[in-house]
Amino acid sequence: MEYPSKLLTEVVNEISKLPGIGKRTALRLALHLLKQPVEQSEQLSQAILNFRKDIKHCEVCHNISDKTVCDICSDSSRQHQLVCVVEDVRDVMAIESTGEYRGVYHVLGGLISPIDGVGPSDLTIDKLVKRIENQYIDEIVLALSATVDGDTTNFYLYRKISEIPDMPKISTIARGIGVGEELEYADEVTLVRSILNRIPFEKSINQNK
Amino acid sequence: MEYPSKLLTEVVNEISKLPGIGKRTALRLALHLLKQPVEQSEQLSQAILNFRKDIKHCEVCHNISDKTVCDICSDSSRQHQLVCVVEDVRDVMAIESTGEYRGVYHVLGGLISPIDGVGPSDLTIDKLVKRIENQYIDEIVLALSATVDGDTTNFYLYRKISEIPDMPKISTIARGIGVGEELEYADEVTLVRSILNRIPFEKSINQNK
Repeated sequence: MEYPSKLLTEVVNEISKLPGIGKRTALRLALHLLKQPVEQSEQLSQAILNFRKDIKHCEVCHNISDKTVCDICSDSSRQHQLVCVVEDVRDVMAIESTGEYRGVYHVLGGLISPIDGVGPSDLTIDKLVKRIENQYIDEIVLALSATVDGDTTNFYLYRKISEIPDMPKISTIARGIGVGEELEYADEVTLVRSILNRIPFEKSINQNK
Repeated sequence: MEYPSKLLTEVVNEISKLPGIGKRTALRLALHLLKQPVEQSEQLSQAILNFRKDIKHCEVCHNISDKTVCDICSDSSRQHQLVCVVEDVRDVMAIESTGEYRGVYHVLGGLISPIDGVGPSDLTIDKLVKRIENQYIDEIVLALSATVDGDTTNFYLYRKISEIPDMPKISTIARGIGVGEELEYADEVTLVRSILNRIPFEKSINQNK
């Protein structure tokens, strides 16, 4: 498609580099900005630049933060011996929004993915190992996606952590039928796991309260 | 949802002001930028700013352009007595990509839409009227969307142009069954229009060549 203007061509090209946004959508977004006050484009442009240039990662858990140590890691009322390993900041936000987890996190910054060329050295795995060696940690909860990449990363982490003397307990979040989901629509693997990892009825009753 | 960083909150807020992009998608896009080289964010940010601040509209047809008069309007080989009225630059691009239309355009910059608070004065209708008054135009082709807003704008334009002494011919693009479409799936209104506006078979044969 040929655009009637170089400036338009450039903005469409840049916007369509974002994942899931094609040239058509990019054009729609650019034309939308044209109808809005110039301030909106200035703020958008500035916010992107500030975010990309000034964002920090917490020195301890590697979550996105404005400070060197994030609010969660510097909160003394949390259980620092319980570390939940997640893929990225979205998972931290999802778990935090439940308000039920009182431990801390370790953000990997991705999953091991041979297809996408992501190896263990691209993630914060070495830093997790150092964290376990340098500080007393009671339990590591692996909370990664139930995908091939997630499983690969789980196994790699398990092996790495097992090599550490005085290794902590390692657990993984439960896989099963989602609350409110119907049994007949669940996939086979999930169904099998939910039966194999069944829990005492009294425990489940207590969690419904 | 609470974000762990002010910079992240700001960029998500700004990106999610774009149409069709929610907070979740905005977060995904922001995190994507974080994994890319800083240059990509700089280029994106700069392209948005340049586009919004420096883009011009052609003085004649009001299409987006880098010049005061666009390439189409300054092309002497085109028929300047034939003016196609469209909603925005995307329609110009769509018609231009067929390579079959040799007239010029008039870009309204939107459609009359009482619901969205867009009135005739928000569009370039007055300028179209002046253009017809000041220059010899043989035919105006109304090529607006077949929606309520499109029809409203069509009627308004027809009335406005009819008031001009020595008014040009006014035509509208054909509505009918799309080429390659199956009759049984067409909606009733389109089907009725396609029968009412039937054309001689010989003419249709010639267009298939």
